[in-house]
Amino acid sequence: MNILITNDDGWGAPGIRMLVEEMKKIGHVIVLAPDGARSGFSNAVTATQPITLRKVDHDDRDIEVYVTSGTPSDCIKLAINVVFKGDVSQIDLVVSGVNHGSNAAVNSIYSGTIGACLVAAEHQIPAIGFSIYDNSHEADLTYMRPYLASLTRHLLDEGIRPGTCYNINAPVGEIKGMKWTRQCKSHWEKEMKETPLENGEVGYMLSGYMVNDEPEATDTDEWALSHGYISIQPCSPDMTYYAAL
Amino acid sequence: MNILITNDDGWGAPGIRMLVEEMKKIGHVIVLAPDGARSGFSNAVTATQPITLRKVDHDDRDIEVYVTSGTPSDCIKLAINVVFKGDVSQIDLVVSGVNHGSNAAVNSIYSGTIGACLVAAEHQIPAIGFSIYDNSHEADLTYMRPYLASLTRHLLDEGIRPGTCYNINAPVGEIKGMKWTRQCKSHWEKEMKETPLENGEVGYMLSGYMVNDEPEATDTDEWALSHGYISIQPCSPDMTYYAAL
Repeated sequence: MNILITNDDGWGAPGIRMLVEEMKKIGHVIVLAPDGARSGFSNAVTATQPITLRKVDHDDRDIEVYVTSGTPSDCIKLAINVVFKGDVSQIDLVVSGVNHGSNAAVNSIYSGTIGACLVAAEHQIPAIGFSIYDNSHEADLTYMRPYLASLTRHLLDEGIRPGTCYNINAPVGEIKGMKWTRQCKSHWEKEMKETPLENGEVGYMLSGYMVNDEPEATDTDEWALSHGYISIQPCSPDMTYYAAL
Repeated sequence: MNILITNDDGWGAPGIRMLVEEMKKIGHVIVLAPDGARSGFSNAVTATQPITLRKVDHDDRDIEVYVTSGTPSDCIKLAINVVFKGDVSQIDLVVSGVNHGSNAAVNSIYSGTIGACLVAAEHQIPAIGFSIYDNSHEADLTYMRPYLASLTRHLLDEGIRPGTCYNINAPVGEIKGMKWTRQCKSHWEKEMKETPLENGEVGYMLSGYMVNDEPEATDTDEWALSHGYISIQPCSPDMTYYAAL
């Protein structure tokens, strides 16, 4: 079983290192990740310039590691087209993360972690994105560790519907269990903070906080996470809003 | 009525200039667009460095124009937080485009044009993205022109459901009518073309073609566009795959 691992925090991030160790328990791991942080890259692709692809030495000879100057979405495209020479059937699973920072609620539309999963789903490759509900760079990822392989095995055993990926977020602190959830309606406020630029002009830095627009709902990812449950949410690259159609 | 206009091809692109002229017929136009091309930027935001915001002189004094070093999604966030000082209620409509190149089928997940609309929908602002089904830089946009104001008026009169945006694509050539559509299942192939880098190493350039995975279906955007119809598709920032949930 070939498991392709990527993320949006880059190959140097602790989350992906932990994910690699856990996924080794399930199958043969191939890593193809950005060479640095690509937070907030969503499904961005590099359309106007060439990107690099470089094989990296790794202590564990069982693991193949590649890094690219591209985005998380580019990573999946490079893996399919270059590493696997267009033979999508050789990639049994894509796992993305572990992201430090929530990809729940409206954050999922901005997430490079989930973006990579959507590209996998475009190609009918089962995909799972793991994130933790803690935006701090010193976020403690270890308490999610026991769930990575077991949740992945569970979803694989249940059978991942083609074209589906799973957006999995873990709460901070004690984990009470897991919930299937829908995306919570929410929006960001006070997002642009004035910042002086090098040339003396006023620039703007992304900032702010997310507001839950349906705090009473108990079937959302935000509810699950704020009540100590892991949130498991199916997503797909089909953007149609069927309820409105 | 305040209409905020943006795009992912930059303020210099012919599509946005045409859109401004047509939207002037409906309301007061404020443009906030990237300072250059941002194709394939999806919902990417600039998370790690400040962005610029500069007011631009325009011959037509009735129109306010701002450009930024940020992404299409950043444009909506700057408009809300800086130009309108956080008062979302002052933006009655966001219109994005006219994009040269299809944002139908799976392309919509990669689209900066649609990304901007999803940010508007996050904030309950009605939004419409216009694109034409022609990837050439010399694409003739003029035949879409008569539909821009009339379609916008029609959707506003019908009432745009809060949290919804519309992804509108026009076919190439004679327009037979309009269809409400769902997103066609599709995927890209042969996307990474070997390209020599300046340092002599092998790099990869985004390339390839999209394959329709359900060519028999007659309710999709791809069907409408390939049969001469304008495709109108509701989208939302809710990524939950309800059919799988």
